[in-house]
Amino acid sequence: MKIGIDIGGTNIIIGLVNSNLDLVYKEEMPTNGHRGYEYIRDQIISSIESMIWKARELNRGIKSMGIGIPGIADVKGDTVIYSANLNWRNVPLGRDIKDKFNLPVYMENDATVAGIAESAVGVSKGYANSVFITIGTGIGGGIIINHKVHKGSHGIGSEIGHTIVGENFYDCNCGNNGCLETFASSKAIENYVKMEIENGFKDTTLLNIGQNINTKSIFQGAEKGDKLSNMAVDRMTKYLAIGIVNIINIIDPDIIVLGGGVAKAGDFLLKRVREQLSKFILYKEIKYGKIELAKLGNDAGVIGAAMLEEYN
Amino acid sequence: MKIGIDIGGTNIIIGLVNSNLDLVYKEEMPTNGHRGYEYIRDQIISSIESMIWKARELNRGIKSMGIGIPGIADVKGDTVIYSANLNWRNVPLGRDIKDKFNLPVYMENDATVAGIAESAVGVSKGYANSVFITIGTGIGGGIIINHKVHKGSHGIGSEIGHTIVGENFYDCNCGNNGCLETFASSKAIENYVKMEIENGFKDTTLLNIGQNINTKSIFQGAEKGDKLSNMAVDRMTKYLAIGIVNIINIIDPDIIVLGGGVAKAGDFLLKRVREQLSKFILYKEIKYGKIELAKLGNDAGVIGAAMLEEYN
Repeated sequence: MKIGIDIGGTNIIIGLVNSNLDLVYKEEMPTNGHRGYEYIRDQIISSIESMIWKARELNRGIKSMGIGIPGIADVKGDTVIYSANLNWRNVPLGRDIKDKFNLPVYMENDATVAGIAESAVGVSKGYANSVFITIGTGIGGGIIINHKVHKGSHGIGSEIGHTIVGENFYDCNCGNNGCLETFASSKAIENYVKMEIENGFKDTTLLNIGQNINTKSIFQGAEKGDKLSNMAVDRMTKYLAIGIVNIINIIDPDIIVLGGGVAKAGDFLLKRVREQLSKFILYKEIKYGKIELAKLGNDAGVIGAAMLEEYN
Repeated sequence: MKIGIDIGGTNIIIGLVNSNLDLVYKEEMPTNGHRGYEYIRDQIISSIESMIWKARELNRGIKSMGIGIPGIADVKGDTVIYSANLNWRNVPLGRDIKDKFNLPVYMENDATVAGIAESAVGVSKGYANSVFITIGTGIGGGIIINHKVHKGSHGIGSEIGHTIVGENFYDCNCGNNGCLETFASSKAIENYVKMEIENGFKDTTLLNIGQNINTKSIFQGAEKGDKLSNMAVDRMTKYLAIGIVNIINIIDPDIIVLGGGVAKAGDFLLKRVREQLSKFILYKEIKYGKIELAKLGNDAGVIGAAMLEEYN
C-alpha cells in the first residue's frame, strides 16, 4: 500500500491507497499553519504512524509515500522551497519524513498531484501527455509527459498561472504584468468586474448583489444573459484560451484538464473556452488536445500523492 | 552510418554521418521548390543512392535516415503536413523514402533538428532538457526532454514563434495577434523601426541608411548608442525574454539555445536577453535554465537529421 498526504492551506488529508487505487482509509485534520513547520510535521508524522498501523491490521506493508504541497519542492523531493500559503521557505519536510520512516518519499506541488490523480483514475486516464490547470484564487499547473511527471530541470516548471499572455490593468503578486492568473483566476474575474463598476458601468444585474459579487454570481449572471457578467466571462475565457494555446504550441499534450473552484462553472465554462481556443489554435485542420473538466473531487490530492512513485 | 537530409527553402544538403558524429561526406543541391514535390523527392532519392554507394566504399552500411523539413511532419514521420516555404500540404515524403529504401526514416521540423545537433555535439550537449529557438524572418523551436525529441501528441508542439506574449500593432501571418514572432523575429524588428519612422521618429542615425534598414543595421546602431535602434532592441529582447520565461514557467529546461540569423548579433543580444529575463523570472532565488547562443553552423541540419533515430 501507499500513503498519500495532501497538505492544503486549511486541511491536511492523509490516506492509505491500495493497488487498485482505492482510498481504503483516511484521516483529516486542520493544517494549523500558524503553529509553524515543526508542529505540522509532527502532526503528519503521527498520522503516518497510524496509517502504517492500519496497513499492518490489513496485513499490508507500505511501499512509498507521496506528499502534495501548496508550494514548490526541490527536484529531489527533500525540501519545500517556498509555500506562500503556509509561509514556508526552505523547509525540509520530505527529508524529515524520509529520515523518520526510511521509506521512499516523493513531494510535488498540489496541482501536479491533482493532475496525476486525473491521469491515474480520472478524465486523463490512458493519455501519455496531459496538462492539469487548477483555477481558483490563483492558477496552478501540473504536467505529465510520457506517463511521468515533468518536474523540470530545477523544479520551477508547470507554473502555468505565471505564463505571460497579454497586458493587464493591474500587476500580478509576482511583480510581473500580464500573468494568466491576473486574467483567468477567480480573483481576476472579480477584479475586472469591480474595475468596470468603479469606472461607471451600470448595465448589469450584478449591481443588485452589492457586496456579494463573486465568481459564482458572475458566471450565473452570464448564463442569464447579464451584459457585464458576459464581458467578464468572455475576457476570462479569451485569456485562458491563450494560456492553453501557448501550452499546445509548446508541448502539444493529448488532453488539458481544467480543475479547481472556477471549473465548477462546468459545461458553461468549457463551451466558452473551447470556442475561444478554436480561434487561437495554429493548425486549424490538425487535431489538437482535448479540453475537459476534472472528474475527481476532494480525494484527488491523496490519491495523486500516493501515486507519485509511479509517476516519477 | 546514418544519412542526414536537411531540406531548406533554398538548398538541400544530404550527408553521411559516422558514429563519432562526424560529417564524412555531403552533397548540396538547390531545392528547386517551384518544380514541385515529385521532382524534389526524386532528387533526394538519387542523392541517398549515392550516399549508400559512398558508405559501401567505406565498407559501412546505413542504419537509418533522418529528414529535417521547413514545416511540420505527422507524428509517424510519414507525411509533411504543411510547409509554407515549399508550398507543400500532406506530402508523403517520409513514406516514399521508407518504401524506396526499406530503412528506418525519421522526419522532423528544421528547428527541432538543429536543436538535436546542438544537443548531440553543440552547446546543449549533456543536458537532458533543452529548447532551441531559431530566430530569423520567423521564429521556430525544438524541444528535447529527457534526451529525446518531444514531438507532442499530434506533432503540433514546439511552435514557440506562435506563443502569444502580448498585444502588437500588427497581426501575425497565422491570423493571431501577439505571437512572439511578431515581436522578436527580424521582420518584427524591422516592422517596428519602420512604424516609428513613419510615425515621425527623427532622432536616429538609421534615417541615413535609407532603404537599407535591416536587423543587422539596427543591432549595429544599438551598439553605437542610436536611440531608435536601442528602442527596437529593447522591445525585441523584452518580448523574447517573455517568450523564454513562458517556456521556463512551463517546462523548465536546463538550457535554452538561441540560433538563426538574428542570433548572429551574438553576445550583445545575449546580454540584453539575459538582463530582461532576470526581470521576468518567477523564482529569482532559484537557479533556472541557461541562455546560450547556438554553436554549430551550416552542417547542424544534416548532423541533427542523422541523429533523429537516437532522439526518437
